[in-house]
Amino acid sequence: MTPTAVDAVLAGDVRATAALLRAIDDDLPGASEALRALYPRGGGAFVVGITGAPGVGKSTLVDGLVAAYRADGERVAVVAVDPSSPFSGGALLGDRVRMQRHATDAGVFIRSLATRGRQGGLSRSTVGTVAVLDAAGFPLILVETVGAGQAEVDVADAADAVIVVTVPGLGDEIQALKAGLLEIADLLVVNKSDREGADRAVADLTGMLALGARPVPPILRTAASTGAGLPALVDALERLRAAPAAARAARRRRQAERQVLALVGERARDVAHDAIGSTAAPGPLAAIVDDLAARRIDPWTAAEALTGVIR
Amino acid sequence: MTPTAVDAVLAGDVRATAALLRAIDDDLPGASEALRALYPRGGGAFVVGITGAPGVGKSTLVDGLVAAYRADGERVAVVAVDPSSPFSGGALLGDRVRMQRHATDAGVFIRSLATRGRQGGLSRSTVGTVAVLDAAGFPLILVETVGAGQAEVDVADAADAVIVVTVPGLGDEIQALKAGLLEIADLLVVNKSDREGADRAVADLTGMLALGARPVPPILRTAASTGAGLPALVDALERLRAAPAAARAARRRRQAERQVLALVGERARDVAHDAIGSTAAPGPLAAIVDDLAARRIDPWTAAEALTGVIR
Repeated sequence: MTPTAVDAVLAGDVRATAALLRAIDDDLPGASEALRALYPRGGGAFVVGITGAPGVGKSTLVDGLVAAYRADGERVAVVAVDPSSPFSGGALLGDRVRMQRHATDAGVFIRSLATRGRQGGLSRSTVGTVAVLDAAGFPLILVETVGAGQAEVDVADAADAVIVVTVPGLGDEIQALKAGLLEIADLLVVNKSDREGADRAVADLTGMLALGARPVPPILRTAASTGAGLPALVDALERLRAAPAAARAARRRRQAERQVLALVGERARDVAHDAIGSTAAPGPLAAIVDDLAARRIDPWTAAEALTGVIR
Repeated sequence: MTPTAVDAVLAGDVRATAALLRAIDDDLPGASEALRALYPRGGGAFVVGITGAPGVGKSTLVDGLVAAYRADGERVAVVAVDPSSPFSGGALLGDRVRMQRHATDAGVFIRSLATRGRQGGLSRSTVGTVAVLDAAGFPLILVETVGAGQAEVDVADAADAVIVVTVPGLGDEIQALKAGLLEIADLLVVNKSDREGADRAVADLTGMLALGARPVPPILRTAASTGAGLPALVDALERLRAAPAAARAARRRRQAERQVLALVGERARDVAHDAIGSTAAPGPLAAIVDDLAARRIDPWTAAEALTGVIR
């Protein structure tokens, strides 16, 4: 990465933007510096997270939102977070294919992010990807992610508004998972609302939300496959986009704190990992793990000893 | 917690064990010390994780396993990790009710763990709960958790064997989530295998596993609601339980490393959180978050500055 690459991204060069995002993903030399240089230049984009349980039609909804905003002439970036794994490879390819109708539109930028690896990787790559697209001048960034576990927390920390998507007739256990999502929703969408049970789904959501501590967010109905309800969803998003600057700033400060804490945790783990080393090349503190595995010490004492080496 | 409480747990006192688990959950004075004192006294239990997508019948399967092991006279502890939230309260209560037939059996200990809060909490409480039940002398500990996001990683780090449960006919996106689970499976169970599509599900799993890097684990069929396939599942578990000591030790060393790294990350976050403080009582490093929120610095530089205060 060269200063020229940073300038090209700032000038809105799509190729340079795509190249930098790949460089960040692959951790190429200079990528991290470019990202740091770009970060302070962003902040202008409206970042929308779209999340929900598997199968609720998030990708179709995102596709519909892209079409609606493109009809108004707005440039849109889409970040699709893909819970792939060494086994599935591109199991969600079907969803990405749905977006193909926008692939030749120069006003639409689509980026898939694989959540390979275990902990921590997603927060870093989502934050970095959004920061680059923001600095590249996209006024609207849609981040789509399966609402399960860590991903939903990350999207809440990276978005100015979060849409939680659900459908009529999910089972009890999925409802419970979804309950975790309700906490981060700025807008709730009951998609596939042409199906039986949509009234019941809206009533259930209203009931669950009434138990919560905060004001009940708007609940909208869509049928993304036909486009029904999309204009109302765009209107609701635009109302959130017009939030007072003070409210936006307060939200971003809370997010900044959570982001930095997540990164501190990742850094600490990385440093401790180096201090442990590998079986082939043990680090200075490898014996702590041996002691823990043999139960000569407990995990909490071991963690204290390892935390002591972090500077 | 007193030394007497520790001794009571080590003597297998069920009341003292339950009291300590509650004290750990509530972070009462002395609970952490009691946990540290007990940890080195465990290691004898065979810890089995049972995980899978929502709705595959994990609780019914656990219930069946408990019944099978009780019929052999073995004492069993069950840890049910519940993805509850301020909104759902006890949304999974239905599952717990299924276990009620064992509630009056003194040879069965059932403990629900809510995964309230955001990151990091689960790993701590699961590890601690299993450590106490292990020290209390339960020879078999079943840890049931919804296979989504962080929980599945935690169960893999806490278990000597992981059963991943699936059913015929899940959708594409759920399949992709499940793919992440395949990586941690020591045994695969196609439950509800009296349903149409069981052959296809077994074939799909075999195909996906063939793409992976490691030996294909056994794939079993059950219908937990009727008990079909449970004796074969118990046999397969017992074969894993009889693994050579060296293999068990190698696995536990890998787990020890992951556990301690997770705890180091949590500690670092906690320390950084204190250094930031709150709006009402800002800590010495609160300005870093203000600078980040205003984009005067980037998250990575902010994290480096905060990591510097961790000792």
